[in-house]
Amino acid sequence: MDVQISSLGWWVPEQVQTAEELSPQIGRSASWIESRSGVHRRRVSDLPMEQMAAHAAKRAIGDGAPPDLILNASLTPVQLLPDSSVYVQQALGLSGIPSFSVHASCLSFMVGLHTAAHFAAAGTYQRILLVSAEKGTGFRNLDEPESAALIGDGAAAAIVEPGSGRLVDFALQTFPEGSEHAQFRGAGTRVPPWEAEPADYQFSMNGPRIFRFAYTRLHEMLFGFLDKHRLRVSDVDLVVPHQMSGPGVEAFRRVGFSDEQLVDIVAEYGNCIAASIPMALAHAQEQGRLRPGAKVLLVGTGAGISVCVALLEWGQATQA
Amino acid sequence: MDVQISSLGWWVPEQVQTAEELSPQIGRSASWIESRSGVHRRRVSDLPMEQMAAHAAKRAIGDGAPPDLILNASLTPVQLLPDSSVYVQQALGLSGIPSFSVHASCLSFMVGLHTAAHFAAAGTYQRILLVSAEKGTGFRNLDEPESAALIGDGAAAAIVEPGSGRLVDFALQTFPEGSEHAQFRGAGTRVPPWEAEPADYQFSMNGPRIFRFAYTRLHEMLFGFLDKHRLRVSDVDLVVPHQMSGPGVEAFRRVGFSDEQLVDIVAEYGNCIAASIPMALAHAQEQGRLRPGAKVLLVGTGAGISVCVALLEWGQATQA
Repeated sequence: MDVQISSLGWWVPEQVQTAEELSPQIGRSASWIESRSGVHRRRVSDLPMEQMAAHAAKRAIGDGAPPDLILNASLTPVQLLPDSSVYVQQALGLSGIPSFSVHASCLSFMVGLHTAAHFAAAGTYQRILLVSAEKGTGFRNLDEPESAALIGDGAAAAIVEPGSGRLVDFALQTFPEGSEHAQFRGAGTRVPPWEAEPADYQFSMNGPRIFRFAYTRLHEMLFGFLDKHRLRVSDVDLVVPHQMSGPGVEAFRRVGFSDEQLVDIVAEYGNCIAASIPMALAHAQEQGRLRPGAKVLLVGTGAGISVCVALLEWGQATQA
Repeated sequence: MDVQISSLGWWVPEQVQTAEELSPQIGRSASWIESRSGVHRRRVSDLPMEQMAAHAAKRAIGDGAPPDLILNASLTPVQLLPDSSVYVQQALGLSGIPSFSVHASCLSFMVGLHTAAHFAAAGTYQRILLVSAEKGTGFRNLDEPESAALIGDGAAAAIVEPGSGRLVDFALQTFPEGSEHAQFRGAGTRVPPWEAEPADYQFSMNGPRIFRFAYTRLHEMLFGFLDKHRLRVSDVDLVVPHQMSGPGVEAFRRVGFSDEQLVDIVAEYGNCIAASIPMALAHAQEQGRLRPGAKVLLVGTGAGISVCVALLEWGQATQA
C-alpha cells in the first residue's frame, strides 16, 4: 500500500546510566553486563511517558500541521484508563483529535505502523502521528540481572501519510505457548493489586529462552518473506531489528546482513521496548541511511511470543 | 469500505447481582440504584477475562474456520505484558495467529471495528476475530455508588470479513480536557504500585460530568454525521449506543430515536465497558433486528473523553 513515513523524531533523556553504575544494583560486574547484554549504556528518564512521547512527537511534527490521528504504540501506560494516547495528546497541547493505542508488546510500533498504513492508504487519515515512548527502567527486576541489564528509556515518533513510499508486505505471528518467557505479571486481573508481590510489577524476561523459542520461528518467517518477494539478503538496503539485546541484534549479522545494512544502537541505548525500532529508524535517518526507494526491513520479536517482519520502500521525505 | 460482521457471539456469566443485592455494598437503596443508574441487574463473572472472551469468540466462530487475526478490544487486562490478545488466543487453543490489542476505553470495540474493517477491505486479513470481554465488577469503587451501580461483566465477539456489508463512515474525537471524568488511575507510571491507594485500582467515573461534557460534543458529531449522509433520524434502522447508563441510553430517545430503533440492554446487564456495544449488537441480532441492508448506527462516549459514531450497512450473515 502506498504510504510513507514522511518524518521521524526521537528523544532520549540526558541521564546516562553506564554498566559501571548499574553493576552494584544488580550484583554483576560491568564487563558481565556489557558482554552478556550487549548494552554498554542506557538512558534513564525522570519525565513521564507522555512528556517523552510529546518531545519525540514535536520533532516528528516539526513545522507541519497537527496530526489527524494520534496512535500510541507504547507498552508503558500512564494509567489503565484512559489509554495513554489521551495523555500524549494533552502533552502536545491538542484537543479533539481522534486517539487510541495499540498494544503488541515490543512490536507495538510495527503493528501500529501496519494499522496506520491501512488508514493512510484508504485516505481515512492523512497525517497520522505514531508514537512509542517507553520508561521501563523504573520497572526493572534488579534480582534478574539478565533482563535488568537490557532495559533503557527512550521515545520516537513517525508521521505516516499517503504518499510516495510503500508498505510492501507485513507478517506477524503470535505463539501463546511462549507467553511466560517475557512478561509483566501485574497491572491486570491475573494478579490483583491486593495480592501482588513487588516482582509482579517488574519486567521479567528469560532472554535465552526467548531467543531459542523465537529464533527458528523468526528465521523461517524472515527467509520465507524474502523468498516471497524474490529478495536476497544483499538486496535489502537497511535492516532495522528490535534492539532486544546485543546477541539479539548480532543474530542478524550471523544470517548474513552486513554492518552497512544493519542498524544497531543497542550498545548505546539498550532495549527501549516498543520505542527501539522507531528510535533505530530515526537514528538511521539522521545518518543519511534512509534514501528514497530504499528497501527497509523492520523485524523483531516481542512478548507473546510474537515474531514480525515488515518491508518498506522508503518514500520522499517531506520534512527532516 | 466493503466489509461485514458475518457473525456475532456473546456470553455473560450466570451469576446475577440485583440492585437489592448491591444495595448494602454501596449504601444506597435498590430503588436509588435502579432509578439513578438505570441498571436493575448485572452479571458478575468468576471466570478470567480470557475465558469470557473465548466463550463469546467460540460462539462467533461457530463451525467456521479459525480467525486469521485476533484483535482484542477490551479494557480489562490479564497482565500488562503480553497483551490480552495472547491469552484469548491461548484460551481458544490456537497458536501462530497474529494477535494484538486496541485500547480506546469504552469505545475499544468501535475503534477495533474501524481497524478491522480497514484490514478486511484491503484483503490483508480475511477473517478477523474482534472480541471485547470485560470483568469490571471486581474493580468497582464501592465508595462511589454512582459508578459502582453501573458496572457489569460480559463479553461479545464479532467476525469481520470482506463482504456484502459496508462500513459507511466513522468519526472519533478525543478531548483530553475531560480525562479526569472517567479513569482508573493505577496500573501505570502515574501512580506506581508502591505508592498506590486502593481507590487507584478502582474505576472512578463522574457520570453527570461526563454526560454534560460529552453530550454536546456527541450531539454535534451525531447530527453532523447524519447530515453528511443525508439521513434523518427516522432513516436509521438500528441505533446501538454504548450502554453507559440508563440516562445515557435514554438520551438517544430524547433526540428522537424510537424504541424500535434503539437497542437498550442497560437495565439487564449494566455498563459492560467495551463489551457493551457488541453485546447489544449480538442481542439485537438474536431478536432478528439486524436485517441485510439495515442502516446500523453505533454510537458512544468513553473515557478520554472520546465520542464516536459509526454507520454500517448490514451485510448477509454467513452464519448465525
